[in-house]
Amino acid sequence: MSNDLLVYNPHVSVDCVVFGFNGENLKVLLIERMSSEFDDNFSDKKLPGSIIYEDENLDTAATRILNELTGLKNIFLSQFHSFGDPMRTSNPRDKNWLEKTTKMKIGRIVTVGYVALIKISRKIIFESENTTAKWYDIKSLDTMKLAFDHNKIAQEALKHIRHQLTLEPYILFELLPQKFTMTQLRHLYDIIMEKKSDVRNFQKKILQIEGIEQLDEVQKDVPYRAPRLYRFNKKKQKKKNK
Amino acid sequence: MSNDLLVYNPHVSVDCVVFGFNGENLKVLLIERMSSEFDDNFSDKKLPGSIIYEDENLDTAATRILNELTGLKNIFLSQFHSFGDPMRTSNPRDKNWLEKTTKMKIGRIVTVGYVALIKISRKIIFESENTTAKWYDIKSLDTMKLAFDHNKIAQEALKHIRHQLTLEPYILFELLPQKFTMTQLRHLYDIIMEKKSDVRNFQKKILQIEGIEQLDEVQKDVPYRAPRLYRFNKKKQKKKNK
Repeated sequence: MSNDLLVYNPHVSVDCVVFGFNGENLKVLLIERMSSEFDDNFSDKKLPGSIIYEDENLDTAATRILNELTGLKNIFLSQFHSFGDPMRTSNPRDKNWLEKTTKMKIGRIVTVGYVALIKISRKIIFESENTTAKWYDIKSLDTMKLAFDHNKIAQEALKHIRHQLTLEPYILFELLPQKFTMTQLRHLYDIIMEKKSDVRNFQKKILQIEGIEQLDEVQKDVPYRAPRLYRFNKKKQKKKNK
Repeated sequence: MSNDLLVYNPHVSVDCVVFGFNGENLKVLLIERMSSEFDDNFSDKKLPGSIIYEDENLDTAATRILNELTGLKNIFLSQFHSFGDPMRTSNPRDKNWLEKTTKMKIGRIVTVGYVALIKISRKIIFESENTTAKWYDIKSLDTMKLAFDHNKIAQEALKHIRHQLTLEPYILFELLPQKFTMTQLRHLYDIIMEKKSDVRNFQKKILQIEGIEQLDEVQKDVPYRAPRLYRFNKKKQKKKNK
């Protein structure tokens, strides 16, 4: 029986995987982490995240912490998975950094992962007294070692939106600007799904989404034949689904 | 900054929502909880769940705890959501029961929810020295108050499999016996999706799932015209998806 065994209280944290799209690449928002280890200064990257407060529910903690670290407000954060490998805080660099930052003895941390899809034009506080945030290509995660198990968390978040996209293709529009071209839309879809769609088939299929509207406008300031712009009318889509 | 604020270590638990289907109703596996409160004995129901061990990852904890409470082995448990409302342990009955059972001072518990779909014929230890398990109609949760926020957790698990079913209809076969009738299959689908499918359309649609096979057998021991049996050939389906 568990009564006879040592039961141990882990810390609980949240980590946020925020994706953006600049028209060419899928990006993830990372925070710079600076500290010293033995006599070396080091700097690496981590997901925006921290330990929850005593009286805070998980969603509130995610919203607060993302705001504290990036200035982002009114972001729809969706919980996707919790990570509780006892070894996820075993790297001495991570442990030392955490204990310095939190002034707490850190054993184990179970973290709850949140994901958000935002327009890359959203106002972000990239530089503040305490933190530095920056967009990174999702591909750069293949070679860049993030703090803790944050590479894994980011990969799981990507898998999650890939899965969600199959059911709810309109999540693409959360990442696109108000007005977008068919090429941008297809390119974004292909990046997330890791495939190469046929141009015509894609257009035919995507235009079946309720709420997608072709505009009488073309893209400006392009050196080639300007492509037509589209937008997504959320209200139309919602009406249809009721 | 969070450094100046009290940071508090919650306990972390897992709770398992195990669904079964008896041909007529969708069932959920609950554990009887008995205790005394002030001078009254009480008995109510809870999901199979408990606090994780220090050195255990979340998946291992879910598997261990479900086995300890029900004898179930080799169950595919899938994490679906974590629940961290600080008020979820605020009911004095829940708090007293936990403190007696665990011999620990309990403040807050963040719980990680797992869901499993199993054949109702699976061998379960319904009665043991320490626990009693029983299948309950999912409908009975509308009127039965479970311990903690377990009604909410069970409802969220149901929502999760409803969502999953849209993408992966073959999860239905995890709940059905090896050989089943088209009526059983449709009935199960309708219960989860909360709809009433048209008999012909349903059959036409469901037969498109790779791996579903019509057998040269009919259902036995039924007082009416015996319906044909089907089975799901997982290997065929896997081959196709590769």
